[in-house]
Amino acid sequence: MRPISWDGATLNVIDQRMLPAKVTWIPISGWKDAFSAIREMKVRGAPLIGVVAAFGLALETKRIKGSSINATKEEVRKIASILETARPTAVNLKWAVDRVMQAIQSEDSADGVRNRAIKEAEWIMQYEENTAKRLGEIGEKLIHDGDVVLTHCNAGSLATVEYGTALSPIRLAVKKGKQVRVIATETRPALQGARLTAFELMKDGIDTTLISDTMVGYVMSKGMVDLVMLGADRVLRQGYVINKIGTYQIAVLAKRHLIPFYAVFPWSSVDMLTEVGDVVIEQRSPREVEMIRGRRIAPKGIKIFNPAFDVTEPELVTALVTDRGIVYPPFEKGLEEADKKQYVSADMHI
Amino acid sequence: MRPISWDGATLNVIDQRMLPAKVTWIPISGWKDAFSAIREMKVRGAPLIGVVAAFGLALETKRIKGSSINATKEEVRKIASILETARPTAVNLKWAVDRVMQAIQSEDSADGVRNRAIKEAEWIMQYEENTAKRLGEIGEKLIHDGDVVLTHCNAGSLATVEYGTALSPIRLAVKKGKQVRVIATETRPALQGARLTAFELMKDGIDTTLISDTMVGYVMSKGMVDLVMLGADRVLRQGYVINKIGTYQIAVLAKRHLIPFYAVFPWSSVDMLTEVGDVVIEQRSPREVEMIRGRRIAPKGIKIFNPAFDVTEPELVTALVTDRGIVYPPFEKGLEEADKKQYVSADMHI
Repeated sequence: MRPISWDGATLNVIDQRMLPAKVTWIPISGWKDAFSAIREMKVRGAPLIGVVAAFGLALETKRIKGSSINATKEEVRKIASILETARPTAVNLKWAVDRVMQAIQSEDSADGVRNRAIKEAEWIMQYEENTAKRLGEIGEKLIHDGDVVLTHCNAGSLATVEYGTALSPIRLAVKKGKQVRVIATETRPALQGARLTAFELMKDGIDTTLISDTMVGYVMSKGMVDLVMLGADRVLRQGYVINKIGTYQIAVLAKRHLIPFYAVFPWSSVDMLTEVGDVVIEQRSPREVEMIRGRRIAPKGIKIFNPAFDVTEPELVTALVTDRGIVYPPFEKGLEEADKKQYVSADMHI
Repeated sequence: MRPISWDGATLNVIDQRMLPAKVTWIPISGWKDAFSAIREMKVRGAPLIGVVAAFGLALETKRIKGSSINATKEEVRKIASILETARPTAVNLKWAVDRVMQAIQSEDSADGVRNRAIKEAEWIMQYEENTAKRLGEIGEKLIHDGDVVLTHCNAGSLATVEYGTALSPIRLAVKKGKQVRVIATETRPALQGARLTAFELMKDGIDTTLISDTMVGYVMSKGMVDLVMLGADRVLRQGYVINKIGTYQIAVLAKRHLIPFYAVFPWSSVDMLTEVGDVVIEQRSPREVEMIRGRRIAPKGIKIFNPAFDVTEPELVTALVTDRGIVYPPFEKGLEEADKKQYVSADMHI
């Protein structure tokens, strides 16, 4: 279930808000389409957001007519800085847009800028596909025959280009013949677990049980979970995992029950510079909480608080699974070493 | 918002599944109405379930024509034993039905049985109203001016006859002029927090913020919660709190953040006999998870696990707030002492 289609000229993405009821493809022809698709969560998942933003910016360059090459680049830069604000928490968005900006710097014609921007967006898409595959190979070793993996939100192919981040090792383990079962949390408010993870895994014939977010403690206390695997929207150099709201409490419960807790993510989600206090946690509309599929579930006018992400402290994390290897504590040392590594997976199949 | 109406002859209850969209009253004329209302969660909340079961049984006695007084009592006993199975976890149901059975033992005519059964149901209703009021007076001292109280599910007047259990101290604190704010979890799958607690507290003008169940860890980590107050469906002599699914993980998070965790309940929820391993945790229909207000939120055919309650260990509980006083650890000693106390609140206003 690839959520993005690029034929060399036009980009289409699945409107994930409609899943699993309807598979609707929508075109992305420039930055405005990309911005609204990201902001309104038609596309979501840190890696996929980056890919769509890169293409949105690259496709936009076709329309930009600066009076000089510098004026053109300045115009692109302005759009890039707006695009980066579509969602503040995942770092992949900024990473991808910055890569496109960086790539076009050496170009000295408008045509050059256009071609280079598209090439860079294609590179990012391929990079995310490759890293997701690699995450599967690396993370699969952490899953044993007979294991039950609890996952949160959707870190599947719908969050990336293919395979997924946290779901990639699960898929590979099953493919290799291991008996693996999954418990998926529904993940309120946007229900990515119920709508997307359950849908993806069922399609792949992977044994999946859906629970409400209130049931995590119960299934852990009953010995029903062997490990936790989920994605990350941003990981800081000390090992802080910023991910979908609800991740932190799952980590606290996993620690209490001595259940390994793994965050699985491509290097594009790593942010070696920002301090934890400076990470902006996106606050989203009350409507996501008070309305479900168009139906009101709470009294009109009730106050609502709707943070979209939370922060999990390094001490709760067993290991970070990246496309540059598995990083164990102390995370700062491990991440710094991995950061210096030769880029392994970017141009693998290009 | 009294969820039950008794005029001395007919009983009506609010169908809480329709709240807050519609206030619909439904009649309870005998045991079958009571059984289905309880099982289908038209009425819910441990104390209210007990009251409705008692009336269901009492009203049924009007229809029972045994060949002898013993045959009549035997018939009532049979119905009582079915009624008790409507929901297995809360102990108030069994407690209330047993009280009615006990009360009629000394009667020696069918009329006597009928009158006595109705009187006992009325006594139970008054008892739950009195204990709820008493819980407010006792628990209110634990809430300080300026506090934010996090509550889960609905432990309000809709779960009892009046005032509520956990919401009773909050109401009294506000009435006394303390500045108290509430954070209510929506409480999936049945959304009692979003539909009932938010509705009740808003009606009373109490400052309430609704969050998804995934956000508990976040609000605690941000210092936004001063104490947790919630109800209990059954409390064991060692201090185990059996309550709505999601309670256990809230208790784990409260402990991590050094936030006091209080369960507030009438003595009718206390079970001094059962061992924790023998408590039956009700498993409910998958439909509660996969459908919300008639809309499907997960792929058809996905496996679902839906336990309705969980067990919180005594070490996570700061204190038990009962109508016989606040019990601190060690709970077994404290509960045994309270169990021997003169019944204080049963006949207060009768």
